[in-house]
Amino acid sequence: MHNTGISSELFTPFLAQQHPAGKPLPRYRMLFNYLQQGIMTGKLQPATKLPSSRELAQLLMLSRNTVKQVYEMLQAEGYIETRHGAGSFVSPQLNISAGRANKTSPQTSTTIKLSLKSQQIDQLRPLYSHDNKQLLLPAMPAIDQFPWPQWQRSVASAGREMKFSSLRDNQGSPELRREIARYLTASRGIHCRMEQILICSGSQQGMQLAFSMLLNPGDKVLAEDPGFPGIDGAISNAGGIKVSIPIDSNGFRADLAMQNSAGAKVAFITPSRNFPIGYTLSLERRLALLQWARQNGSCIIEDDYDSEFRFDGPPLTAMQGLGGDDCVIYSGTFSRILHPSIRLGYLVLPTALVDPFTRMRGFLDGGLSALPQLALADFMAKGHFSSHLRRMRKLYKARRHYLLQQISEKFSDKLQWLASDGGMHGVFLLSPDYDDQQIAEQAIARGLGIRPLSYYYDQEAAQSGLIIGFAGYDENQMDKGLKILSELL
Amino acid sequence: MHNTGISSELFTPFLAQQHPAGKPLPRYRMLFNYLQQGIMTGKLQPATKLPSSRELAQLLMLSRNTVKQVYEMLQAEGYIETRHGAGSFVSPQLNISAGRANKTSPQTSTTIKLSLKSQQIDQLRPLYSHDNKQLLLPAMPAIDQFPWPQWQRSVASAGREMKFSSLRDNQGSPELRREIARYLTASRGIHCRMEQILICSGSQQGMQLAFSMLLNPGDKVLAEDPGFPGIDGAISNAGGIKVSIPIDSNGFRADLAMQNSAGAKVAFITPSRNFPIGYTLSLERRLALLQWARQNGSCIIEDDYDSEFRFDGPPLTAMQGLGGDDCVIYSGTFSRILHPSIRLGYLVLPTALVDPFTRMRGFLDGGLSALPQLALADFMAKGHFSSHLRRMRKLYKARRHYLLQQISEKFSDKLQWLASDGGMHGVFLLSPDYDDQQIAEQAIARGLGIRPLSYYYDQEAAQSGLIIGFAGYDENQMDKGLKILSELL
Repeated sequence: MHNTGISSELFTPFLAQQHPAGKPLPRYRMLFNYLQQGIMTGKLQPATKLPSSRELAQLLMLSRNTVKQVYEMLQAEGYIETRHGAGSFVSPQLNISAGRANKTSPQTSTTIKLSLKSQQIDQLRPLYSHDNKQLLLPAMPAIDQFPWPQWQRSVASAGREMKFSSLRDNQGSPELRREIARYLTASRGIHCRMEQILICSGSQQGMQLAFSMLLNPGDKVLAEDPGFPGIDGAISNAGGIKVSIPIDSNGFRADLAMQNSAGAKVAFITPSRNFPIGYTLSLERRLALLQWARQNGSCIIEDDYDSEFRFDGPPLTAMQGLGGDDCVIYSGTFSRILHPSIRLGYLVLPTALVDPFTRMRGFLDGGLSALPQLALADFMAKGHFSSHLRRMRKLYKARRHYLLQQISEKFSDKLQWLASDGGMHGVFLLSPDYDDQQIAEQAIARGLGIRPLSYYYDQEAAQSGLIIGFAGYDENQMDKGLKILSELL
Repeated sequence: MHNTGISSELFTPFLAQQHPAGKPLPRYRMLFNYLQQGIMTGKLQPATKLPSSRELAQLLMLSRNTVKQVYEMLQAEGYIETRHGAGSFVSPQLNISAGRANKTSPQTSTTIKLSLKSQQIDQLRPLYSHDNKQLLLPAMPAIDQFPWPQWQRSVASAGREMKFSSLRDNQGSPELRREIARYLTASRGIHCRMEQILICSGSQQGMQLAFSMLLNPGDKVLAEDPGFPGIDGAISNAGGIKVSIPIDSNGFRADLAMQNSAGAKVAFITPSRNFPIGYTLSLERRLALLQWARQNGSCIIEDDYDSEFRFDGPPLTAMQGLGGDDCVIYSGTFSRILHPSIRLGYLVLPTALVDPFTRMRGFLDGGLSALPQLALADFMAKGHFSSHLRRMRKLYKARRHYLLQQISEKFSDKLQWLASDGGMHGVFLLSPDYDDQQIAEQAIARGLGIRPLSYYYDQEAAQSGLIIGFAGYDENQMDKGLKILSELL
């Protein structure tokens, strides 16, 4: 090439270059990348003179402006220098080897080391992935019954409202907090004002925030066994230690918990219906736990995952409503009872914790998108949430009835129902001839998303059983799922 | 009352009870709360016989079914016992004092102790709240120019798409990740596939995740001074220690950083345009930092907060694109460049970090709401994002021009512009007669949301100056804002 240090052959690969799959790159970006790569790989040595923009435009069949723009970009970023009247040169002092990943010499490229904490979390039992194509998943609501037209109207309204909403609120949209406070007061016996509510993306995020606010490294968390494996990561992330306490038919063994409560900052419980088994925590134990929390400056986290669906009467009163509004954090979620894609939950905080939690939240994620919050607020304000819950309570009751009937007809010798007054799944003890984890693994491989009961235990003496979701599935789907199960048992 | 242990006067307050403000409680909930409170406060002593449901219904002018339902609820929750033929009694063994918050005797009620970590975070300089009624806020885009009709169509489409979308993805909606990968490849010189992208609720959450994955307690983070105060909380939450490194006109002093790099696991930098001052990190320093990161298994977090808005040419290439895809985490956000309520950002991760980050994310928040992600994906796929950015680039350039003109006319003796080739705010050094923090405080009190430059410094030798946002304000608003400023200076 005229008067430059490089041959035009250097550009042959550029001309031969195919557009990568998907949307093509702009021409200027392709040329920039090509020259940048040439410089970084040493094909274009430091101080090499580049062709003039006119020459290069001609050679590459590009407009001269494109080439000029690329030279300006390369100059702005320090790859080349343009001397007036003399032309453009690859920057002479570039130590290009410094920036290059040298894959042939491993000493110069160490892989990124992850924190011990993240390695510990890698050691935890993995969470099940939510593959919605599986049948009889325990946490799946009836999404085919979801009132889409009403939801879409609320979504459209949110798209308009967003224009006028307060732009950022670390606690969550006031509109949604107001609706949640109303709902909880009327339906769950909870004493709260909207000022105590903090919106989270599902209860998982609420747990992370709560443990991080309450636990010092080494602090203990009293938790139910069996219980939610999802809290293990949040506890471990905060440096806490989980102490597993067995349950009986009156729920969490508060008596045993008290014996292990030295150094315990938090009790994490599901009093309305123990997860996964479904026992309700007795009033006596509730009162004992409240007393313990108050005397020790400890905190009870009450996780209420699906107790909206109680079939024998209205939902039970939350512990928070039992005069526990000074030491109970109540956690609820919409993902489980409404739709998994909603990913909104909330904490009801004791008044004293509102400010510190909100401040921490500002540092940790700075608040959530307004759109789903405004949509859900509108959906609740128009009464669609309550009426959907009422419909689902009836539907789930009927679906459970069908499941229990089928199981007692087909599996009476192998599966024994652990009675519970509500929920979205049934728990069935498995006859000792079978290994529940093995059955569940085979089931999942065949598209049946049941879970092994023993997975939810920390202690060795786990019960073997199957957890079967009924809420999200009609009789046809249940038949299909149970047919797979009958082939496995 | 006939044959019971209580007098009908006990119910006088119930009859006199006014509905609380807002939506009234259902009758059954009001009666339940009343009786529960009566039992918990000792007005209804253990073993007291309650009136029959017929008697109480008559007295309170309620339907008998309502009273029956309440008695059933009280029984289900353990407050009362119903003996067949004998009637209902307050449970005889209730230790009601246990559950009661005893506010008169402080020994029995200790306030909840927060973690040391949360106390440390309380010590950090507080973040400014985003009050959108303030004028000339630095991080405010032109929301009056936001293409609402297009956005609302995308939102409506998302409301429909949600029905068919995969229900939960810890990495974020595939639809949005695909659009982001396309955009970054075409416009920011980034090498990435959608599999490397993790959607977060703003960059703040991305930082929290990254620091928690990378830092052990005591590990150092090299950071720019001045720089983002928002990272302090995330670093502190992970137990890390921030090491502030000064900047000069070539950006982050990589040479000084290297002298302080023993034990540093992360360098957090804004190479395209230092926040808040706007200097660009030189190529030489970029290469040196990449070399350091590779040799030490350390990680560079490249925060790209608004470099879409470069006025003298296309946005500069990200460090990630400079062959740093094995050691650079690139962080971007839509809240700043599009609309603050959107609260969506993303990390582009080195391939080796994708799985561990995604797993941790599953434990920490379990993914975000599908709705805003699907809306934004549609908005991008239809080209509205790119065309809005193009329009805003022109508009912000004109707005900056106006601001600089006005300031040089009115404040040439007091404010000196620190030149920068883009962004959404201008930085002006303040003449030494003034205290920038004091001026900003007075300004905010009068509705002018300018920020003091010295706030962004960790070192003592902070420069005094004012940070003035221009992107979100038209000439009229700028005039109003500058009038307030002229009264203060």
